[in-house]
Amino acid sequence: MITEANIKNGVNVDQLVETIGAVQKDPSLAKFEFRTKNNWIDGGHCVTSAKSFYGVGAEDTTRKETFTMEADHPQVLLGEDLAPTPAEIVLHALGSCLTGAMVYHASANGIDIESAESSLEGGVDLHGFLGLDADIRKGFEGIKVRLKVKSDATTEQLENLAKFSPVFDMLTNPTPVSIEIVK
Amino acid sequence: MITEANIKNGVNVDQLVETIGAVQKDPSLAKFEFRTKNNWIDGGHCVTSAKSFYGVGAEDTTRKETFTMEADHPQVLLGEDLAPTPAEIVLHALGSCLTGAMVYHASANGIDIESAESSLEGGVDLHGFLGLDADIRKGFEGIKVRLKVKSDATTEQLENLAKFSPVFDMLTNPTPVSIEIVK
Repeated sequence: MITEANIKNGVNVDQLVETIGAVQKDPSLAKFEFRTKNNWIDGGHCVTSAKSFYGVGAEDTTRKETFTMEADHPQVLLGEDLAPTPAEIVLHALGSCLTGAMVYHASANGIDIESAESSLEGGVDLHGFLGLDADIRKGFEGIKVRLKVKSDATTEQLENLAKFSPVFDMLTNPTPVSIEIVK
Repeated sequence: MITEANIKNGVNVDQLVETIGAVQKDPSLAKFEFRTKNNWIDGGHCVTSAKSFYGVGAEDTTRKETFTMEADHPQVLLGEDLAPTPAEIVLHALGSCLTGAMVYHASANGIDIESAESSLEGGVDLHGFLGLDADIRKGFEGIKVRLKVKSDATTEQLENLAKFSPVFDMLTNPTPVSIEIVK
C-alpha cells in the first residue's frame, strides 16, 4: 500500500502531529540548543558559522553542511559594506520566523497559505550606540512589519499564528544574555 | 602633503571622530532606518533581501549590492535544512554586533584588539512554540556568549565596550514590534 504524506503549505503535517505527540509523551524531547561561532575579521566585519545543535533528546547528526553568514557595515558606518549589518540580520531573522511560525501553525490548523511576503523596517538613533545620550536606546526604537498573505484565514487569525514566532518573543520580551569575556 | 588615515582595529578613527562631531552639531544625522523584504518559499524556508536604508539625513546611495539571506529549519523541525534557522540567525546578529561594538568603541578609546572570536548558545523549550504550555516562552530562555579577545584592556573594559551593541539592547530590553497583516 502506498500512502501519501499529508503535506500542507510545504509542511509535513503527519510529522508535525507526531512531533507534538512525542513531546507530550516525553517533555525532555522539546529541549533544543542552537550554537554559533563568530570570528572577527576587522572593523565591523565578522563571519559566523553554524552547524551543531541539540534537540529531540540528542546531538543532531543529520546536518551535513556548516552554514556561514557574514556581517559588515555600510561605508557611512565605517565599514566596507561587504555584508548586511547586524540590524538587518535581526530583521531577516524576525521576518523569516514570523512567516515560518504562521505557516507551521496554519498547516496544523488546516489553513492554506498561498503566498506570503513581508517588508520590515527598524529605526534607530545613533546617539545611543555612540554613547552621546544615555536616555536613547542603542537598538531599534521599534520594528514595523507589514506581512502580505494570500489565505482564506482572517487577518486576526494570521496575526495570532505569526505571533507563535520565537524571534518575535525574543525581541518583544527581555531575553537574558550572559557575556563571559576570556582573554 | 600625504597624510595617513588613522586606522585602529580596521576602523577609521578620524572618520569616527568626524561622525560623532557631525551628530553633535546636527542630531538629526543620527537617525537611521534599516529595511528588509522577506519572501516565503515554502514550509519554514524564506529568503530576505536587504539594500536600501536611510541615514545621515538622506537615503543611502552608496550601496550597490542587494544582500540576500536565507532561513530554513533542520529536518527534525520539518524543514529541508537548506539554511540556518531564525534562532541561529539571531545568534549571528548578536555575536557580530557585540564584537563590532567592542571593536568600534575600543578604536575610539585607543585600545588595540588583536583578535576576537566568540561562541554563542541559546536554549529553547519547544513547548512554547508548539502552544503546549503557555508558561514556557517561545524564544530562547537565555543566550550565553563566550567572547575570547586578545587585547591589553581588562575583561571588564571589554565587556563594557561590547555592551554598546544595538542587538544586545534589542534582545535584553523589550523592542516593540508592530505587525500589520494585509490580505
